[in-house]
Amino acid sequence: MEFLDRYQQIVADAITKYTFKDKPTELYDPMNYIISHGGKRLRPIMVLMACDLFGGDLKEAIKPALAIEFFHNFTLIHDDIMDEAPLRRNKPTIHTLHGINVGILSGDGLMLKAYKFFEDLEPEVFKACVRIFTHTGLLLCEGQQYDINFETQTDVTFDDYIRMITYKTGVLSASSFEIGALIAKANFKDAKAIFNFGKHIGIAFQIMDDYLDVFGDQAQFGKKHAGDIYENKKTVLYLMAREHATEEERKELDYWYSKKTDNIDKVYNVEKIFRRTKVDEKALRLIEKHNEIGQSYLKKIAIPEDKKKPFAELANYLLRRES
Amino acid sequence: MEFLDRYQQIVADAITKYTFKDKPTELYDPMNYIISHGGKRLRPIMVLMACDLFGGDLKEAIKPALAIEFFHNFTLIHDDIMDEAPLRRNKPTIHTLHGINVGILSGDGLMLKAYKFFEDLEPEVFKACVRIFTHTGLLLCEGQQYDINFETQTDVTFDDYIRMITYKTGVLSASSFEIGALIAKANFKDAKAIFNFGKHIGIAFQIMDDYLDVFGDQAQFGKKHAGDIYENKKTVLYLMAREHATEEERKELDYWYSKKTDNIDKVYNVEKIFRRTKVDEKALRLIEKHNEIGQSYLKKIAIPEDKKKPFAELANYLLRRES
Repeated sequence: MEFLDRYQQIVADAITKYTFKDKPTELYDPMNYIISHGGKRLRPIMVLMACDLFGGDLKEAIKPALAIEFFHNFTLIHDDIMDEAPLRRNKPTIHTLHGINVGILSGDGLMLKAYKFFEDLEPEVFKACVRIFTHTGLLLCEGQQYDINFETQTDVTFDDYIRMITYKTGVLSASSFEIGALIAKANFKDAKAIFNFGKHIGIAFQIMDDYLDVFGDQAQFGKKHAGDIYENKKTVLYLMAREHATEEERKELDYWYSKKTDNIDKVYNVEKIFRRTKVDEKALRLIEKHNEIGQSYLKKIAIPEDKKKPFAELANYLLRRES
Repeated sequence: MEFLDRYQQIVADAITKYTFKDKPTELYDPMNYIISHGGKRLRPIMVLMACDLFGGDLKEAIKPALAIEFFHNFTLIHDDIMDEAPLRRNKPTIHTLHGINVGILSGDGLMLKAYKFFEDLEPEVFKACVRIFTHTGLLLCEGQQYDINFETQTDVTFDDYIRMITYKTGVLSASSFEIGALIAKANFKDAKAIFNFGKHIGIAFQIMDDYLDVFGDQAQFGKKHAGDIYENKKTVLYLMAREHATEEERKELDYWYSKKTDNIDKVYNVEKIFRRTKVDEKALRLIEKHNEIGQSYLKKIAIPEDKKKPFAELANYLLRRES
């Protein structure tokens, strides 16, 4: 997608321009290190897209877009410590290279640096953006804590799960769009509409992630097949399977999810229940449902349809990852 | 001091009133836990004092005062993980009770919650306060990193040290005063003056901390005698001693500081050098110097002297801890 490349270039240039040169380097180098490894950088792009949609000045949105990217990377640094992850984007994680203390501290610093990147905005817009930003950050922490709770919680419901992924994934995309809209001085209703578009696309994206873990083409998806099953993750597939399983199947699911094993029988049997309860179809329908809700919010915005095309394309890109 | 008791009560009431009731409790309970343990809560009191000095509405300053206290406690949670500290204010630290992951995450959340507590301010004041707050947070991270660097750095200078304690201790008191002043709509010059008062009192306080570690009355000071020497801490005493030592004394200092030992000979010999180089007197003079600089900033503020009395009293209280 041409428009994505264009935004990606803007973000990449800004990241180069705003590389931290502060001291001590032991604090700031790890921040530059993780930011430089890229990833798709979709969240800052969302800020720019929304700013463009509502006719704002893209230059004003660039530093706030970086704020979102920095914030995202701060969460990655701390999440990697919590998950004891040795690699991120195929590079050693910060705590692996420099120890947990540097990971904690450079993560903290990166979160604070993110706030600085709103400071060029005039006070009214500054306050509106920083409020959203702080609120989003708190929801991310809450989502992360719910996710941790799920590991030991036996009565996780479908609604619990949707809330968790909304907080962990949906809200940051949603807020990225909303912040872009506010910088462009969009009205409250439109800003909320683009927020909700982002939220539901984010939810759909996360459900797709769960789906592809089991039903995806491994070569394209690029992760270990059924990693979530091996890890006993309470994904949407698991939760829906448990809901629609027979008494006997539920017992079998509970049996397999009560232990961590690399036994291939586990994946084989769990997947059999997944197919029997048709959670693959259900998950695809759920993705479609959230996509449609997202699109309906997009439709509410009184702007010519052709200007909204990139948003539909982005949703397609995110939700058709296999094709 | 009567005025301190009054402010302390206001802060204590506000902390009770704003106890976090959010979910998940696994995230928010640790925040309430550390905040409820108190400490002197001098920083939020500084916000209130400055607001009062400049004739502001104390009610507007209460939530920002809590923001400072929350931020301070966030740094304590993360510092305790980094220092592997089992106790804080005689209670088990959060990571000791709940593990490192909960410590990291509830610290992150507490920092974010702190930002929320400025949101009742009107946009202009909000932006001014949040800017100071973010900047202060970054300096604290930098100070913490310098402190970590000092452990292995052999060429720490006196200026390095002053910068480190300024960032780690001075700036947060300074900013607490400044934020209180801004909420009261003090002019820029006065806000900077009260900032600088706080900064130099903070620096003096930290030097006093180093001094009392060796020359304090152990019973009153309440810490292990010469803990800094056992820990090879590059305190102001060590740095000044090294500067004024003979070649032979310097070699002896380097010898003792090259190893960690509980050997009482270490303390005996290091203290002998401290006394020979007269760093006790030098430290007291340095404390007095920073106190005087602080007082000179206080003098510049065009407000009747009797209104400033609590500030001089607070400085006295902080810098005469032994008497």
